[in-house]
Amino acid sequence: MSNRILQDFSADTTPVQRGGAPLRFGVNYTPTRGWFHHWLDFDIDQVSRDLDSIAELGADHIRAFALWPVFQPNRSLIRPQALADLAAVVDAAAERGLDVSVDGLQGHLSSFDYVPAWAQTWHQQNLFTSELVIEGQSAYLEAIAATLAGRPNFLGMSIGNEFSQFASPLHPNRSELTVAQADTWISTMLAACAAGAPGLEHHHSEYDMCWFGGEHSFTPALAARRGHSTTIHSWIFNGTSKLYGGMSEQSLRLAEYLIELGRGWSTDPNRPIWLQEIGAPAPHVSAEDAPAFLEGSLKYALDTENLWGVTWWSSHDVDTALADFPSLEYSLGLIGNDRTVKPQGHAFAKVAAEVRTAPAPARRSTALVLEVGDETLAPGRATCEPGGAFFEAWMSLAMDGARPSVILASQAGDASFLAARGITTVLTTREVSAGSAI
Amino acid sequence: MSNRILQDFSADTTPVQRGGAPLRFGVNYTPTRGWFHHWLDFDIDQVSRDLDSIAELGADHIRAFALWPVFQPNRSLIRPQALADLAAVVDAAAERGLDVSVDGLQGHLSSFDYVPAWAQTWHQQNLFTSELVIEGQSAYLEAIAATLAGRPNFLGMSIGNEFSQFASPLHPNRSELTVAQADTWISTMLAACAAGAPGLEHHHSEYDMCWFGGEHSFTPALAARRGHSTTIHSWIFNGTSKLYGGMSEQSLRLAEYLIELGRGWSTDPNRPIWLQEIGAPAPHVSAEDAPAFLEGSLKYALDTENLWGVTWWSSHDVDTALADFPSLEYSLGLIGNDRTVKPQGHAFAKVAAEVRTAPAPARRSTALVLEVGDETLAPGRATCEPGGAFFEAWMSLAMDGARPSVILASQAGDASFLAARGITTVLTTREVSAGSAI
Repeated sequence: MSNRILQDFSADTTPVQRGGAPLRFGVNYTPTRGWFHHWLDFDIDQVSRDLDSIAELGADHIRAFALWPVFQPNRSLIRPQALADLAAVVDAAAERGLDVSVDGLQGHLSSFDYVPAWAQTWHQQNLFTSELVIEGQSAYLEAIAATLAGRPNFLGMSIGNEFSQFASPLHPNRSELTVAQADTWISTMLAACAAGAPGLEHHHSEYDMCWFGGEHSFTPALAARRGHSTTIHSWIFNGTSKLYGGMSEQSLRLAEYLIELGRGWSTDPNRPIWLQEIGAPAPHVSAEDAPAFLEGSLKYALDTENLWGVTWWSSHDVDTALADFPSLEYSLGLIGNDRTVKPQGHAFAKVAAEVRTAPAPARRSTALVLEVGDETLAPGRATCEPGGAFFEAWMSLAMDGARPSVILASQAGDASFLAARGITTVLTTREVSAGSAI
Repeated sequence: MSNRILQDFSADTTPVQRGGAPLRFGVNYTPTRGWFHHWLDFDIDQVSRDLDSIAELGADHIRAFALWPVFQPNRSLIRPQALADLAAVVDAAAERGLDVSVDGLQGHLSSFDYVPAWAQTWHQQNLFTSELVIEGQSAYLEAIAATLAGRPNFLGMSIGNEFSQFASPLHPNRSELTVAQADTWISTMLAACAAGAPGLEHHHSEYDMCWFGGEHSFTPALAARRGHSTTIHSWIFNGTSKLYGGMSEQSLRLAEYLIELGRGWSTDPNRPIWLQEIGAPAPHVSAEDAPAFLEGSLKYALDTENLWGVTWWSSHDVDTALADFPSLEYSLGLIGNDRTVKPQGHAFAKVAAEVRTAPAPARRSTALVLEVGDETLAPGRATCEPGGAFFEAWMSLAMDGARPSVILASQAGDASFLAARGITTVLTTREVSAGSAI
């Protein structure tokens, strides 16, 4: 079996263009002064100095984050000053050649939850199905989008950073909803973004639970079929580093894997993928290894089709004077809290320079079949998690040099779909594990 | 029986002094612009205009409210600007002859809960027993108290407005704790206030659940024996208006009743009582009746011993542009949102002028015995709620002109305690209901 698999690896290596657009390369912007609480003491001079240090890395865009309760403390009060401050960030970014994608509903950031009082406890308690909450969220997203719509460096919105964490079966104060309700919510929020800023690139951002959690109402199908592109958040603390080591091939290939997983769930062969978050978390990756982790991870991630871009987490280290962050959050920056570039920042700058002229990667002609049961609900998606059978099989193929992509079981027999994706070899996890066993 | 009861009513009507200090008369300050979200867009000019309109009513103090997540967004970040803004409010009040008592942990305000992210969901979830939460709360209260300590018009702190709502059996996301833990928490918070501002009047503020809810860990004993004085929040929407009517004697006497209940739970015969909140909520009280409700309620409330003062809720109407408040919250102001004095504001001003020269009330020589079981836990305290046997008996006595006070069952046979309180007639609810039945 192994031979057959290896034999097919070179089936199609024709380079494809990325639709003519250069790959985007940027950072998630973490303010040095006050972290995202900087909105409470907004200082454009400090923000500008942060953006200076980001621009010096060669980044072409940032992802910027509002804080929902600060921007919309009452359902009918979307603070004009907060919108003006956000616009000032976008304008300061423009002055430095940086485009900006804005996340609205934070929502969730670095382990902390921010939900306004009007959507909590005695008031509406379900963040996805309460009518008044949806009304408030829609007005909020539309207001942000409309504020920024005229600015040429404004890329568009994400609904909110991993907002579906509030629906996680693990959340201590979970909002429950069905998959159909999740779909409705996503569509409503995206419509609000589009109402404020028509024609721009609006997203919803999903995290591991979407790809791996069979009970989670935000599904891979929704991740890969709603919004402008599929967003990928790649964090090796999801079990990968624990199982295989922080600098293992599995860890270095996690982003590539998730990108291919996201591509596999797409019904549109040309749908863009955005590696929206990836970082080198300590102690999973040591400070010494961080540059190599960055370069290794990106080498693999950039070898994928339809990649819109990469946005590293994060720009700057979190101020250690701030308490209660998970310890790994303090040192994720490419740049220190004092705005000196860290070794991983230099590595980022190097890749940023190279990626501008790199050819688009060859198409991936080998696909591994994903079986998760009903593909709307994906109850069997745990097979995709680190250590799961599908994860193991895909990694095995990848490490054998197969450049595997992913195809859903429902599409594995669809010749025209396979042709559109350029897939010439279709393998099952059973075949791979049998092959590996030889 | 009825005769015997009536006969004793005139046993001791000697006026007593209020310890030489004039009764304090003020308002809970509700900012007209942005409600308590004004901290996010702080404008001392608007605050000053609000305080002008309060001073014109003849108030001598305000109760002012911080917003916890805005003041302390991270456990180790107590924002200097927020403290400076609060100090500016206190100084602006001083310029208008107004003293200020400050509530720290909001916490809870007008149906809305405000809890910082570091004390919620993925982080510490118990607001009373988590060590890090307690550490953060203590630092916060001490910082506010220390900021204001040198200002002669700063009266002191309340830990937070009805913060124990977060421990209520009815709260959708309840923090559970024992009575002993509640005691420890209150004492720790009061110590933090005293560390920041030694020698001032620091309180904890309790609401109905404390007096009526047998499962609530914040007990009447704690309310009446911790902090500088016993704080009373008198709201007829607690069932009183529904059972008896908004302008009934029971509703007009609710504050008087709660004050006497608080006095009954005190072990110190001279402990001050602060009627910290009372208001005329629509539609329980119509706009037309509001002035009469104010005058009637205060006539009874002011006829109690050891009353430190009255703080009406609230200074100004809530801006109707703000959404999701319970409807009654919008019209509680003595002053409209446009800063024109409402009829109940004129009534307040009239009482404020009269109260300065009014003699202290006569002592109350008749006491109704309260039996609630174990007096540390007070499991039977529901007898005190509107419609409860004790409530009914007390009201019956009051309406018969008896000016009843309250004595705990454990103290009803203590001759020296009765003498210290000036109580000469002790009645049980059974005697009262038998007497009423004749």
